[in-house]
Amino acid sequence: MSVYTASATAPVNIATLKYWGKRDKTLNLPTNSSISVTLDQQDLRTLTSAATSADFQKDNLWLNGKEEGIKGERTIACIKDLKRLRKELEDADSSLPKFSEWGVHIVSENNFPTAAGLASSAAGFAALVLAIAKLYKLPQLMSEISKIARKGSGSACRSLFGGYVAWEMGEAQDGLDSKAVEVAPVDHWPLMKAAILVVSDDKKDTPLTTGMQSTVATSDLFQYRIKEVVPKRFEEMKKAIQERDFEVFGDLTMKDSNSFHAVCLDSVPPIFYLNDTSKKIIKLIHKLNEQEGKIIAAYTFDAGPNAVIYYEEHNENKVLGLIHKYFHQVPGWDKVAHKKANFKDSDIEFDTEAYKGVSRIILTKIGPGPQDTNQALVNEQGLPK
Amino acid sequence: MSVYTASATAPVNIATLKYWGKRDKTLNLPTNSSISVTLDQQDLRTLTSAATSADFQKDNLWLNGKEEGIKGERTIACIKDLKRLRKELEDADSSLPKFSEWGVHIVSENNFPTAAGLASSAAGFAALVLAIAKLYKLPQLMSEISKIARKGSGSACRSLFGGYVAWEMGEAQDGLDSKAVEVAPVDHWPLMKAAILVVSDDKKDTPLTTGMQSTVATSDLFQYRIKEVVPKRFEEMKKAIQERDFEVFGDLTMKDSNSFHAVCLDSVPPIFYLNDTSKKIIKLIHKLNEQEGKIIAAYTFDAGPNAVIYYEEHNENKVLGLIHKYFHQVPGWDKVAHKKANFKDSDIEFDTEAYKGVSRIILTKIGPGPQDTNQALVNEQGLPK
Repeated sequence: MSVYTASATAPVNIATLKYWGKRDKTLNLPTNSSISVTLDQQDLRTLTSAATSADFQKDNLWLNGKEEGIKGERTIACIKDLKRLRKELEDADSSLPKFSEWGVHIVSENNFPTAAGLASSAAGFAALVLAIAKLYKLPQLMSEISKIARKGSGSACRSLFGGYVAWEMGEAQDGLDSKAVEVAPVDHWPLMKAAILVVSDDKKDTPLTTGMQSTVATSDLFQYRIKEVVPKRFEEMKKAIQERDFEVFGDLTMKDSNSFHAVCLDSVPPIFYLNDTSKKIIKLIHKLNEQEGKIIAAYTFDAGPNAVIYYEEHNENKVLGLIHKYFHQVPGWDKVAHKKANFKDSDIEFDTEAYKGVSRIILTKIGPGPQDTNQALVNEQGLPK
Repeated sequence: MSVYTASATAPVNIATLKYWGKRDKTLNLPTNSSISVTLDQQDLRTLTSAATSADFQKDNLWLNGKEEGIKGERTIACIKDLKRLRKELEDADSSLPKFSEWGVHIVSENNFPTAAGLASSAAGFAALVLAIAKLYKLPQLMSEISKIARKGSGSACRSLFGGYVAWEMGEAQDGLDSKAVEVAPVDHWPLMKAAILVVSDDKKDTPLTTGMQSTVATSDLFQYRIKEVVPKRFEEMKKAIQERDFEVFGDLTMKDSNSFHAVCLDSVPPIFYLNDTSKKIIKLIHKLNEQEGKIIAAYTFDAGPNAVIYYEEHNENKVLGLIHKYFHQVPGWDKVAHKKANFKDSDIEFDTEAYKGVSRIILTKIGPGPQDTNQALVNEQGLPK
């Protein structure tokens, strides 16, 4: 039995200009363009191996060590697209093995706890699509592959590039122009760092698709956001990245996070992702910037209470000094133990109990896109190791 | 020594279409029209007595038993306007005593704890302006008087009428067309009841004027709210009141509360008035309406975490039944002790600890406008009793 395998990793990306709202639910076509920063895969990544063989009767999926099977419509749609592209190759070259007719095994693992509530579906779908594309030796460019990942999870398309990434919403009904593109590679502005405060939450958040579509259907302010606010901000943020202007980048990042949560609140019924701890962190960052007289740190919150705080490396002592002062009790600081002596003490007053609402801190930085890897999660039989 | 006195009461009003944003800070001219419900003065009212005498050298103010003096610019502006109108009368009839040249003493008391964080400035300025207007025997109609109260506190103009009240924003630069008018008297729709959940808060809220003007200056979504959302909603809400349509009234009331808090969140820095307890109450009311299959209760939140829940009297057993189930531990229920047997038990599941974030409940209803009163807070010398 010949078993063919390939593996790929994909990073987590955190939007600085938010994707919220679909104009087509099946194709995951958004109501606005978005921008994200790709995070370092040393800290946050999905590793996925794909295997195929003439003996595999059906597609199958193992996630973090557990056999899940291929259940979701979105996963099915991605695999179908990939097999269709493979078939085009096979049709053109009859010497190729008929992967498009065989079952595919997918084995996937995150290097971070899923329980942290960090949106892992973006990295997950990006790695899945990429591993299979590699297995199938598809010649398509990354932006083309991003359209397939997009059908799995909208924001997954942005995880196919490193550095600073834009998802251009496109206009076509079939979504052929709704894809990710690189705004700038990591090397263009490599100083960008991120501190993620994982905020404890006692409630179930509104699921993403349900929440988005409720906002689309019921929020008055949302229509203005997608038509007037975001298009302007999209151009301004790209420019800020191109010019490495952290003040503008940070200002727009914070504004857009708040704008996104504002249209959630304007939905019927209102959707709340920020909790009291999130709000405290927001206030802390504004206090820091106010004291500095300029924006040196910028928060952003996705569809949950976790804070991602961006800052440039040369401000690390100030930013981490402040965060460490009030959140040193939570795990995750060991990574910077050797730097603590340089942390600036801060005289900013803050709720000394706020750390109780935070379960851990993840210190990371901007990172490159998907990587080739020698690690494989499947054995010679095409089953999880 | 002749001392002349007059007294008046004024109610608290709670906006169902929110006032947020000034186009003129000195004149308190709003960026949008608003609508409110006047609450029963048995539960919430300010009583103010005014006294004047040729012997009074200066104006003075006593608030809740404490001499405050006339400090605020807004109080000074109101007194100045009232003296100017009085002077017009004196100029036309020289037999009148020269009140406009004498000091005025103002003594004011609330029948509810100021600590509750219920916006008391509206009732306060309405009663102040009205007591002096009565003392001066001014012939102006209530809408005219409302323009003076507006200069004290914008929403005070709405406390000069009972029932359902609109504050028409007006267009004139001098504010002469920015006044309160009655949408419908109490008798038109007398079944409206209100339960106020006073929510504990550990932080200082952003002051009103600061918050409003920050939103005006920095929120993108705010511009759409005032230009497109509110004008349409203003007409729809007036119609709902005229037609006694609680479903539409309640839907618009909740939407507008959320829209107001959304533009607060969209401000730089973001302004938060709702806390985690407020959000729980919002969810509880949506659950109730969902179970009923129609809107029978509607929340609204001003610039603070307190919830005001409107409902119609014939739904009291359902609405209070649910609220009592989860908040019976807080004080304020004695008033309905005789009705508790009729409260409907609810199978709606809810956070059984939520009551810990609520300090009291105030059960009240829609009420009439300012009342004449025999109660006086000043003695024969024109000093606090």
